[in-house]
Amino acid sequence: MKSITNLSKVLLPAILASVAFTACKPGKAVDSVDGDASKKVYVAPGKYDELYMFASGGFSGQVAAYGLPSGRLLKVIPVFSQNAENGYGYSEETKPMLNTSHGFVPWDDAHHTQLSKTNGQDDGRWLFINGNNTPRIARINLSTFKTEEIIELPNVGGNHASPYCTENTEYIVGNTRFSIPMDATQDVPIDSYKENFKGAATFIKVDKEKGTMNVAFQLIVPGYNYDLARAGKGVSKDWMFFSTYNSEQANTLLEVNASQRDKDFIMAVNWKKAEALVAQGKGKRVPAKYAHNVWDEKTHSATSTMMKDVLMLNVQDYPGLVYYIPCPKSPHGADVSPDGEFFVASGKLAAVIPVFSFKKMLAAIEKQDFEDQRADMGIPVLKYASVLEGEVEKPGLGPLHTEFDDQGYAYTSMFVSSEIVKWKVSTREIIDRIPTYYSIGHLSVPGGDNKKPYGKYVVALNKITKDRYLPTGPELTQSAQLIDITGNKMKLLLDFPTIGEPHYAQSIAADLITKNQVKFFKLEENHHPYAVKSEKDTRVVRKGNRVDVYMSAIRSHLAPDNIEGIKLGDEVYFHLTNLEQDWDVPHGFAVKGANTAELLVMPGETATLKWTPDRSAIFPFYCTDFCSALHQEMAGYVRVSPANSNVPISYKIGNNPLAKK
Amino acid sequence: MKSITNLSKVLLPAILASVAFTACKPGKAVDSVDGDASKKVYVAPGKYDELYMFASGGFSGQVAAYGLPSGRLLKVIPVFSQNAENGYGYSEETKPMLNTSHGFVPWDDAHHTQLSKTNGQDDGRWLFINGNNTPRIARINLSTFKTEEIIELPNVGGNHASPYCTENTEYIVGNTRFSIPMDATQDVPIDSYKENFKGAATFIKVDKEKGTMNVAFQLIVPGYNYDLARAGKGVSKDWMFFSTYNSEQANTLLEVNASQRDKDFIMAVNWKKAEALVAQGKGKRVPAKYAHNVWDEKTHSATSTMMKDVLMLNVQDYPGLVYYIPCPKSPHGADVSPDGEFFVASGKLAAVIPVFSFKKMLAAIEKQDFEDQRADMGIPVLKYASVLEGEVEKPGLGPLHTEFDDQGYAYTSMFVSSEIVKWKVSTREIIDRIPTYYSIGHLSVPGGDNKKPYGKYVVALNKITKDRYLPTGPELTQSAQLIDITGNKMKLLLDFPTIGEPHYAQSIAADLITKNQVKFFKLEENHHPYAVKSEKDTRVVRKGNRVDVYMSAIRSHLAPDNIEGIKLGDEVYFHLTNLEQDWDVPHGFAVKGANTAELLVMPGETATLKWTPDRSAIFPFYCTDFCSALHQEMAGYVRVSPANSNVPISYKIGNNPLAKK
Repeated sequence: MKSITNLSKVLLPAILASVAFTACKPGKAVDSVDGDASKKVYVAPGKYDELYMFASGGFSGQVAAYGLPSGRLLKVIPVFSQNAENGYGYSEETKPMLNTSHGFVPWDDAHHTQLSKTNGQDDGRWLFINGNNTPRIARINLSTFKTEEIIELPNVGGNHASPYCTENTEYIVGNTRFSIPMDATQDVPIDSYKENFKGAATFIKVDKEKGTMNVAFQLIVPGYNYDLARAGKGVSKDWMFFSTYNSEQANTLLEVNASQRDKDFIMAVNWKKAEALVAQGKGKRVPAKYAHNVWDEKTHSATSTMMKDVLMLNVQDYPGLVYYIPCPKSPHGADVSPDGEFFVASGKLAAVIPVFSFKKMLAAIEKQDFEDQRADMGIPVLKYASVLEGEVEKPGLGPLHTEFDDQGYAYTSMFVSSEIVKWKVSTREIIDRIPTYYSIGHLSVPGGDNKKPYGKYVVALNKITKDRYLPTGPELTQSAQLIDITGNKMKLLLDFPTIGEPHYAQSIAADLITKNQVKFFKLEENHHPYAVKSEKDTRVVRKGNRVDVYMSAIRSHLAPDNIEGIKLGDEVYFHLTNLEQDWDVPHGFAVKGANTAELLVMPGETATLKWTPDRSAIFPFYCTDFCSALHQEMAGYVRVSPANSNVPISYKIGNNPLAKK
Repeated sequence: MKSITNLSKVLLPAILASVAFTACKPGKAVDSVDGDASKKVYVAPGKYDELYMFASGGFSGQVAAYGLPSGRLLKVIPVFSQNAENGYGYSEETKPMLNTSHGFVPWDDAHHTQLSKTNGQDDGRWLFINGNNTPRIARINLSTFKTEEIIELPNVGGNHASPYCTENTEYIVGNTRFSIPMDATQDVPIDSYKENFKGAATFIKVDKEKGTMNVAFQLIVPGYNYDLARAGKGVSKDWMFFSTYNSEQANTLLEVNASQRDKDFIMAVNWKKAEALVAQGKGKRVPAKYAHNVWDEKTHSATSTMMKDVLMLNVQDYPGLVYYIPCPKSPHGADVSPDGEFFVASGKLAAVIPVFSFKKMLAAIEKQDFEDQRADMGIPVLKYASVLEGEVEKPGLGPLHTEFDDQGYAYTSMFVSSEIVKWKVSTREIIDRIPTYYSIGHLSVPGGDNKKPYGKYVVALNKITKDRYLPTGPELTQSAQLIDITGNKMKLLLDFPTIGEPHYAQSIAADLITKNQVKFFKLEENHHPYAVKSEKDTRVVRKGNRVDVYMSAIRSHLAPDNIEGIKLGDEVYFHLTNLEQDWDVPHGFAVKGANTAELLVMPGETATLKWTPDRSAIFPFYCTDFCSALHQEMAGYVRVSPANSNVPISYKIGNNPLAKK
């Protein structure tokens, strides 16, 4: 075993450069900063940023909204991970959001943000994000910045090539990172990979009005690893393009064994054709257990439904549905130009960036211009030269991902040589390059996957931080860099840290989001079963050993604030309704010793904390979010008596007992 | 009940101003910004910030390190809340850190950061932070930025007036926010408050070398609410000063009932005398169950010990130990001037800021210059006029907290009038005032509680954000503001968002921290019982239905990466050792469907993920932290067979089975 590291070094010398980034001294970066950089990124107090940037948190499992150009973190939106700060994944209402067929899963690895689109342009309605580990796709409502829906994907191992959006958000699409056996009932050895392991590309239908998601169908595809994807647009709008690696179908030591072949593939899928096949009743419904979790804004609660089957189409059975295109070594990105005519693959172990032509692809299909050797499952492979428009030559080392601006240029990230390369789409000529600190993964141009990109900036989403900031022990912040692309030469403006790994990000003009903002929830529309609409409805109700506290919060008291008659052995549910009807007046709730997080309750909302007291004692509770000058006084006590006590349920605030129902 | 809100409005008209902040238009702030502000806060890419600011996350339960003057978030340090991003509170090693006498508590409300001190100056060794809800104090090691210790406080309800540090970090001190019955064996009604409820001031001894904490003693004190505190320094170094509110001893509707009296108190405690009494064997050990959780950097693991008793001294029994000083209405801060001679109280419902003289206090004690009416428990109350040096007149509305610069000035935050007031300590003359957006709580001058403050900036830690940033639905970011105090007039430089509530912060010159940084953990010093020191030691061991996977990570593979022989019903422990010995090369680990968070493992460290597979299937696992160009290939499979299977344990990477022990 000791020889593995050496082996890789011999096989993949270029990779070494990825470790040798210390040659890039920070000093160089400072020198290259535009003299006006400070003014270009400074957003004066009280002024607003120009763009929202939505970055996935990578291994944080969340999404973060930043302002650009300031790089300021506006909000962490909890998605796949529990978030003690506001009770997400801890409150009774939000726990179902993290349910899966494997039970409650409090974390995931969130990789690719995808803004919803209308006519190929970001429309500011929803943001989709994939969970990579326990395969899921989430939808965030951009009027509330809340995760509204999470759907699990069956038959998938690692939902990495996900979630990608068709031109009018007809579908959100994902594909497997790790192929797995499709027949879950069979116990097969891992080294039966080539025989038993397949991929599954999932097409999720999105409701045009509400955004709700449903798995429409899955395509069983060759047993490779799928990495990234993009939908076509304009001329190519009926197609999806996925990058693949491990076409070697290795199942161990992928570092070496999945890097043997000079070319892997781009997989082109005619999703319109798949949709038509489904409409014709093709495919087979197969048993599949997966969770579909939906947040209801009226009840302020999530429900989790376990789905039972899924419609699957084996692409082998439907010629013309899927084609493979050879692509230099281990491609990461598969990116489509604004006009939809070109798709660009970035082979991270490749020496060139191939630019493919959609028109040529259709012609090659028409002519059946296939390689002799087919891909796994007998899928036809189009000839590289027939589909290729041309190559970007000597772009740098480790091309990963390409986005486009509004001026006809493309920007490709280079992981190994740690830089961004700007090239002209029409000629594939390299125009400029700028170093990144360090080891850029994805990059992001605002609107960079739109028909009409916004441009102006490119953001480098870096993988290594090293010496860029004040150190924080062995674990360092993750980091992004903002680069001005308005001129011919790119100009570095700002390093800004990010929560989690800034895996990928999409940015959008602020007014597309701000115009739809919900500032508080209307109390009269609160249909939570334990809501109170006014303080006079607050009460404490015992049913057996379950006690429900219907509690209200308004500046500056919780009602009731003296509760007695709870007994050891009871399960107590504090249902807190925030009666405020104004912006930015949340109230929080915590009780000493509870084995869960606080509640953070927005105006007009109701949330529930479950508490099983562990002893007979007086327990304080209080509002946790500083809400007024008398916030510190917004507190109360609950008395827990011994199990055999006969203290009756009682509750009050001030000298007045509350109305009893 | 419907009349409560109106009642408060009648009683406390000044408070209304706290809601009427919308009169402060953002436009004004922009106008008042220094023309050079953008240059003053811009830290060019690759350059370092001048200061670390450690802010408590308030209801996030964590601490965040920011760089100043840029306001960039350098790191969220998990303390009291689970943090899925790096597995804190999820991994087997870190779960014990969140243990309490109430069981596992995954959240708290972290209010006041306290840097350790030597000779009254920040020494950059440790950072202490209180857990307010389930009373705890944590210690963070500033060479690793890890929470190393959490100690629960018994006999306390709400650990708010905490944690405050004596001049040489002899003690970390906390006091109760909510008084509770001291006799936990008795079931008493809440309205027996005046009879049964008391406070407990906790003195935690800190080991001079290691920083480890132990509860030395608790003082039973009058049954009020204790809010904040500071240790004396220089002349007053043997004393602690606590602010109190609710000297009315109300137990319901505190909003009204705890705001009746014109004066509450400052409590002055002679801690040197208490220490001497303890040395003389005074006090009584009483049963008390509380957790003491310690992180061991050698085993990379925490242990939780349940403590059984605590030494208590009833201050009634020891005249001269504690004195009360009347103080205008509901004081928040109790802050000591750099020379230790003055202590300043900020009564949030008061019209003046009283400045007390330590010399005068000693003289008044000497003369027994007491009020006729004693405080609860018969504690003597010194006469206001006898201890007062003078008052800062017409400072604004709602004074909360005062810190000091290096030029003889004090800065007091005004919650209700939403401003900072600068005044001269020697004359109590108001020099300047600057609006804050909105509703400032604490403020923070770098080194502001030191004998020699660093000065230069004051940071406003605001409670309300409203319209200061691009909106993010009903839940908005929290926010701080950086203000230049180098001139006679304060100048607003920057608004910057914070994670959680920026409840309080302390800042320190960067070089005091950077010089001690640990960049990775030495593998040869790793004494984790399941560590591997090299790949050849990796293995899978079954004992009954427990399976231990001794796994290693090094760029770019996990070993073993093919594991078979796991059966449904097994409990699998993945122990991952990161074999790297370089800075900023963490590896992560996740397995599909696990009901826990990922592991994020620093170089040289070992961490454990417990997994109970829920079905017979092939499960992918992978490295979650992008570590190299072949990170995407750093993955493997584990096969789970049916419970009755006879597939033997086997494991490998590449074609070589790993050495078996």
